[in-house]
Amino acid sequence: MSLLIVGTVAFDSIDTPFGSSDTILGGAATFIGLSASLLQVPNAIISVVGGDFPEEYLEMLKTKGTDTSGIEIIPTGKTFFWHGKYHHDMNSRDTLTTEVNVLADFEPKVPKSWKSPDVLLLGNLHPSIQLQVLQQLDQRPNCVILDTMNFWMDSAWDQLLEVIAKVDILTINDEEARQLSGEYSLLKAARKILNMGPKSLIIKKGEHGALLFHDNHIFSAPALLLEEVYDPTGAGDTFAGGFAAYLAKNRKYDFSSMKTAIIYGSALASFTVEKFGTEKLQSLTREELAERLKAFKNLTQYDMVLEQQNQNK
Amino acid sequence: MSLLIVGTVAFDSIDTPFGSSDTILGGAATFIGLSASLLQVPNAIISVVGGDFPEEYLEMLKTKGTDTSGIEIIPTGKTFFWHGKYHHDMNSRDTLTTEVNVLADFEPKVPKSWKSPDVLLLGNLHPSIQLQVLQQLDQRPNCVILDTMNFWMDSAWDQLLEVIAKVDILTINDEEARQLSGEYSLLKAARKILNMGPKSLIIKKGEHGALLFHDNHIFSAPALLLEEVYDPTGAGDTFAGGFAAYLAKNRKYDFSSMKTAIIYGSALASFTVEKFGTEKLQSLTREELAERLKAFKNLTQYDMVLEQQNQNK
Repeated sequence: MSLLIVGTVAFDSIDTPFGSSDTILGGAATFIGLSASLLQVPNAIISVVGGDFPEEYLEMLKTKGTDTSGIEIIPTGKTFFWHGKYHHDMNSRDTLTTEVNVLADFEPKVPKSWKSPDVLLLGNLHPSIQLQVLQQLDQRPNCVILDTMNFWMDSAWDQLLEVIAKVDILTINDEEARQLSGEYSLLKAARKILNMGPKSLIIKKGEHGALLFHDNHIFSAPALLLEEVYDPTGAGDTFAGGFAAYLAKNRKYDFSSMKTAIIYGSALASFTVEKFGTEKLQSLTREELAERLKAFKNLTQYDMVLEQQNQNK
Repeated sequence: MSLLIVGTVAFDSIDTPFGSSDTILGGAATFIGLSASLLQVPNAIISVVGGDFPEEYLEMLKTKGTDTSGIEIIPTGKTFFWHGKYHHDMNSRDTLTTEVNVLADFEPKVPKSWKSPDVLLLGNLHPSIQLQVLQQLDQRPNCVILDTMNFWMDSAWDQLLEVIAKVDILTINDEEARQLSGEYSLLKAARKILNMGPKSLIIKKGEHGALLFHDNHIFSAPALLLEEVYDPTGAGDTFAGGFAAYLAKNRKYDFSSMKTAIIYGSALASFTVEKFGTEKLQSLTREELAERLKAFKNLTQYDMVLEQQNQNK
């Protein structure tokens, strides 16, 4: 079992109604790698950072279980930086600063030992970078998962469609599903998107959970109700990481496995939002995760007795 | 088993992006009564209509199974009329006309034979009318359910709190839960509202399903994904009607029963939105309902294997 990850490793600065973070460790691949390590799935990150990136961050990722040999360090460059501010409802945010820095000229290089992963997770980056990674592999992974966002729909439409056509599973949010398909109904949107190539589609709905579409099957996963959402940054990446790692761990990619994988991703994401950045993921224990998985199960279980209907047919 | 309903019996005129209805049969109690009759639960409506209300509508309700003896007819008055227009997303709407008419002086009168129902559903009306109905009963029903809306929070706060304190189950939507509690987090909102008196709270989230809170238990019910939402009018009333009727039918009011009742309410509501007004509810068969209940079950079922966690403790 193995998971290869391409995505950002970055600095974040986050303002919320509850307070502000310093410049802290962020980036999609960071959240994904930590999630995979928590599920004890061997994983490696393909990314790029600048000379300003603390060695201790790389050490931490390594200690947790991530192979960081694919994270290129450009000594003269600066690491990608994002500064964002969340509004009171914590569902909307403004980007105050984006410094692309070393990511502007990023040319991903997959290490030799990682050219045949079980699962490849193409984190949210320019579609051409995602394509380059796919092309560098010795063989097609058992499962390729693509995470993207509206930004690439606006700026790299053709390349995005090219990479979408090559993956097994696409994860986007509800607004992005509508933009990608031109359909308001998520059911119609999903049908159109599945015709673009992916075998499965996950629509993330934030505090309203997630939907999984595969052939004619639909699964609706709830989101856990949280006392307080402290910092939503990285929740979507954690979700994708937990989802991908669960599949890689069990090496089964059918509808049933994907459903359980979504619950794992949702459970992990529910921890990420409890503290700033990766803080909670770094300290999370497998016992806490097991407890939360049970809470998810309790949230949706019900008894359905259909006899009364059948008697009256 | 029996369900007493108080609520509007009315005329609606509905504009949607897909077309407009004529002036058609509407009103919360109408949708609730039809839902209860579908579940074969004896039910009666307490309401008022004008001399303009067609006898055939009352006949239809009677034929389906609703006792209409509590629907007062004011020959010289006009029936409550609502004209609304839905926006393209079908989630928001504008009220173009509201003619309160005979409802302005409505004094509910519970027929003698209905003074001891199993379940009482206080449909969305002025809280003082809801209180009057409660006071006319010979004994407190096993279960009293209250449906209300933000309008009464703005215009009749004290009376609303008075009736809320007297009921077992309150149903409102997410925005209303936030307004009633002053809390943005639905978890915190639910705790505050349960301290106002009700033993259980249902928060309706439209296309995102519903949440049930009871003691420290939470249940998250999904909404079915629909090809097309044709007319959302009456969906919330149908939901409440199906929920109340399921409880009345089984005469159990515990958490487990309420969870299943929510699925029944959701399934019925998913039919209501498929056509204008009550059209789909009137033609619905119990076989169609049974099929949809199965679809709901499939939507949320998943296998959870926690052994891997336990082995690594």
